[in-house]
Amino acid sequence: MLKDFGKRLRGIRLKRKFTQEKLAFTMEMEISQISRIERGVINTSLLNIIKIAETLHISPCELFEG
Amino acid sequence: MLKDFGKRLRGIRLKRKFTQEKLAFTMEMEISQISRIERGVINTSLLNIIKIAETLHISPCELFEG
Repeated sequence: MLKDFGKRLRGIRLKRKFTQEKLAFTMEMEISQISRIERGVINTSLLNIIKIAETLHISPCELFEG
Repeated sequence: MLKDFGKRLRGIRLKRKFTQEKLAFTMEMEISQISRIERGVINTSLLNIIKIAETLHISPCELFEG
């Protein structure tokens, strides 16, 4: 589950031409945390999911489907 | 944000005729935690969001939209 979420995040991030660094900087989050979310090794929070979606200009739905 | 999420969860839970107790028991979670999520006072986790959606037989999307 976490890995699937992470893969979708990575795919959308790359499609939107965001580096991990740019996403992390914009969200005021550590790059390592973005990396861990994308690798599915941490169980991120609801607020982080919403912030990630806002930063990538997507609906949170896209991080759960496709 | 957390409050909106909580309100949607509560609405869907009631529509699906789940009590907080039934949802909590099915997910092996404390009733108080479900209550806090619905009141928007805790920032729940990705895995909890996925488990809630599975238990209510909905897509996680429905917890973020509508």
